[in-house]
Amino acid sequence: MATLYLNDFVRDVPDFPKPGITFKDITPLLLSPVAFKSAIDQLVVPYQDEKIDFVVSAEARGFIFGPPVAMALNAGFIPLRKPGKLPGETIEESYKLEYGTDTLQIHKGHIKPKSRILMLDDVLATGGTMAAGAKLVEKVGGTIIGFSFLIELSFLAGKTKLDGKKVHSLLNYS
Amino acid sequence: MATLYLNDFVRDVPDFPKPGITFKDITPLLLSPVAFKSAIDQLVVPYQDEKIDFVVSAEARGFIFGPPVAMALNAGFIPLRKPGKLPGETIEESYKLEYGTDTLQIHKGHIKPKSRILMLDDVLATGGTMAAGAKLVEKVGGTIIGFSFLIELSFLAGKTKLDGKKVHSLLNYS
Repeated sequence: MATLYLNDFVRDVPDFPKPGITFKDITPLLLSPVAFKSAIDQLVVPYQDEKIDFVVSAEARGFIFGPPVAMALNAGFIPLRKPGKLPGETIEESYKLEYGTDTLQIHKGHIKPKSRILMLDDVLATGGTMAAGAKLVEKVGGTIIGFSFLIELSFLAGKTKLDGKKVHSLLNYS
Repeated sequence: MATLYLNDFVRDVPDFPKPGITFKDITPLLLSPVAFKSAIDQLVVPYQDEKIDFVVSAEARGFIFGPPVAMALNAGFIPLRKPGKLPGETIEESYKLEYGTDTLQIHKGHIKPKSRILMLDDVLATGGTMAAGAKLVEKVGGTIIGFSFLIELSFLAGKTKLDGKKVHSLLNYS
């Protein structure tokens, strides 16, 4: 088989969501079962001997990658959601956007003290979402083993918000 | 191993999202790699000889189940999203909620004419979301082979909105 380059499955969409921004569209990757499986396999590799208990991802695109990685690691999956979506008791964390703020919630009682957590998302941009998610995980007692991303936009320096933890990215745009 | 009952991994949350409604919370299922894998395996079974090209699911909870089912069927995954989220050219469909309307979009150009589609979601309630998604899939030329749901709330009769297509549900609450 010819070598598969994940980068060939990411589409640049200029001026989205607004003029001057080039959006990395991962939906072409999802169309190809071979490319998607390769991405999941590569996201798993750095953590396969880390005895991960739970993979944690934020809605909505994080939900596409978190559960398959969790399955491959024989770990559970825990969703981070926008307010009003999780039906049980939650704690929440707000974080800054370019304009305004956003809030994420996590269920109480699902992460046990010392649970070993892999934080996973499709794209690391400014790091706001994953930094807020990490705070929530630590508030409920979890131990963050590392972060995995399909794409890292390293020019936005999101890694600096992730407290020196291990960060793996499959594709890096600088 | 003791028999695994998926129903044991679904939590009833009374009065959510509002008084009088009992919400079926699937997050306990996600915590258990064994139960989650069992659910995915059972969602796959009725379609494993159907040569499915793409699994189509709506944000956000549909994204948790669609990609693992797609991987198991060696199919691609296509997301249905709320307006403003898909960066490429889209078509959209609006549908009624109890109060007001909601809208779903799908990328143009990803489903090819005659592509064989499995529509998948976590819960079949009134059927509005999946009926709108099915219209979008058919507008871009896809052929819907069937629908799969983890949970069917059959007292809401959502199946009547799905045009007599094949519908499989793992758990049925009547």
